Amino acid sequence: MVAPRDARRSPVDDAASVTVHDVAREAGVSQSAVSRAFTPGSSLVADKRERILAAAAKLGYRPNPLARSLIRGRSGIVGVGVANLANPFFVATLQLLSDRLDQNGLRLMLFPAQGEPSIQDVLHYRIDALVLLSVSLSSLLAGECRRAGVPIILYNRTTDQDDASCVVGDNAHGARAVAAHLLGGGHRRLAFLSGSPDASTNIEREAGFTAYLAEQGLPPPLRECGHFAFDAAMAATRRLLLRPDRPDAIFCANDTMALAAITVARHEFGIDVGRDLSIVGYDDVPMAAWPSFALTTYSQPAAQMVDETVRLIHALRESPSNHEAVVCPGKLVVRGSSRPVA
Amino acid sequence: MVAPRDARRSPVDDAASVTVHDVAREAGVSQSAVSRAFTPGSSLVADKRERILAAAAKLGYRPNPLARSLIRGRSGIVGVGVANLANPFFVATLQLLSDRLDQNGLRLMLFPAQGEPSIQDVLHYRIDALVLLSVSLSSLLAGECRRAGVPIILYNRTTDQDDASCVVGDNAHGARAVAAHLLGGGHRRLAFLSGSPDASTNIEREAGFTAYLAEQGLPPPLRECGHFAFDAAMAATRRLLLRPDRPDAIFCANDTMALAAITVARHEFGIDVGRDLSIVGYDDVPMAAWPSFALTTYSQPAAQMVDETVRLIHALRESPSNHEAVVCPGKLVVRGSSRPVA
Repeated sequence: MVAPRDARRSPVDDAASVTVHDVAREAGVSQSAVSRAFTPGSSLVADKRERILAAAAKLGYRPNPLARSLIRGRSGIVGVGVANLANPFFVATLQLLSDRLDQNGLRLMLFPAQGEPSIQDVLHYRIDALVLLSVSLSSLLAGECRRAGVPIILYNRTTDQDDASCVVGDNAHGARAVAAHLLGGGHRRLAFLSGSPDASTNIEREAGFTAYLAEQGLPPPLRECGHFAFDAAMAATRRLLLRPDRPDAIFCANDTMALAAITVARHEFGIDVGRDLSIVGYDDVPMAAWPSFALTTYSQPAAQMVDETVRLIHALRESPSNHEAVVCPGKLVVRGSSRPVA
Repeated sequence: MVAPRDARRSPVDDAASVTVHDVAREAGVSQSAVSRAFTPGSSLVADKRERILAAAAKLGYRPNPLARSLIRGRSGIVGVGVANLANPFFVATLQLLSDRLDQNGLRLMLFPAQGEPSIQDVLHYRIDALVLLSVSLSSLLAGECRRAGVPIILYNRTTDQDDASCVVGDNAHGARAVAAHLLGGGHRRLAFLSGSPDASTNIEREAGFTAYLAEQGLPPPLRECGHFAFDAAMAATRRLLLRPDRPDAIFCANDTMALAAITVARHEFGIDVGRDLSIVGYDDVPMAAWPSFALTTYSQPAAQMVDETVRLIHALRESPSNHEAVVCPGKLVVRGSSRPVA
């Protein structure tokens, strides 16, 4: 569908009729100052900026994005795909990422939750880099982006493919720390409430948890799937707590599911959480600290993970093929939802 | 700062060396099909699209965004500013907006929380329209956008200025419904926990609440400020509950503050919320329905408000000066945090 051309001046009209030189003369400043006035993140004293924008408005000047893109070789746009904004960990990440990109003079283009961005969008907007927050990367998009020279960074996901870098928490260490904490509290009938079974985070957390139990001579945990979501986790918790061999401790693969597990245990089964049943999450979202939940959880360092992501964006723009896998360690935060270590 | 030009092919190189015609011939399709393959939101059967992208990759073709912008007269980018992603109502709104814009072939550029976008960004990326979620609009940006022909839509905020359209909930009706519900439950010592004092939503909610009380012959409510934030609302609730004339009902100007009020009343003061103290919020965020809170609240229709926002974007692109103020009615949702009406 081609929309009717609107009545505003087109960039070619502008470029043909009014130049940076004209605006600089009108405002009584250098051409470089005019350029800075239209460049996101550039410094310029406020009254000079106002004078330049007033002159530009008077003359009808608008900058030409293609010319800038040619000079800089880049659009300054980072595409971000987010699978699940229902998880506060990714909301916090998005907020941090938005701020950090802004501080670096970059702009964030948000793609909807249904899946990864299309290669059409990546090419059309000349996106500099793609960041996928818990979105699995298809081999199709990975190959298309490699051919187009657009780096991809997976956040909170690893990949088998060579075409992407990734920034993740230390899931194996985190899951082992949770297992040690629960065994130290005297628990022996353990359960794992899993997220989406094929997510790398889920696979690594379950493997680390199960491996630690095996090293201590214990069988694998009971297991139900909550798909990283509140409602599915409520249903999964009911199935676990209705078993004749009811577990006395549940490790949930994220905090959203742990909050659901506490809700079901307390309000539907009347269980004293933290004494008769320990529940532990993963992420340390803001709600975990609320007294209504007091959730023991393994804290993922979102700020550090975002800093590493932005560092990688810069590094990959210089050397697109130098892929990295960055692992950011977290720490166990013990609150009231789990029995203290004896 | 001018970044070094990178090693990738520039759009001018591409445009000079490889055209849509070349790609169409290589793939054995029409030029229109090639164009659709690179246009976000266009339909094309999958295998034809793959053939075209393979041909484009082989020849090194990349579309020219300026040419497209000239044909369409627009970038297809909608700038979105969000003040507060700690409030789940705006997270839900952002997710809905991202999906709806995508369905309309538009892209969402997210601006950081510290404030409104700069006019440099608006001009540099040729942004089609600006949507500000609970961000107050400065007269400076309003004027600059008017001169540049870029429409502004305020979401959940009104403005005195003539330069912007807005989409809001029916705050006056909502606040009156809450007041009627609390009086019907037998409460007479009422308090208002306010958000940011200068936000139009806060002003309208307080005015509607106070006006209804006056009509019933009651004095204005007690008042503390929680700035729409969880921690500030905890402190404000403590101040209210330590008063000798402690209120028996608190209307909070958003749900985040109401969840904080429930937490303080229950965990710090041992109060039976819903019997000895009624707490009512505003928004109906997902957590309001959790059994741990069971929050009575006035539900804002985020999906309808987002639909109206997208409709306004289209309308304003056709007629930039036809400003509208759209009011979307909500409804009271009664749960356990308030005493039932006798």
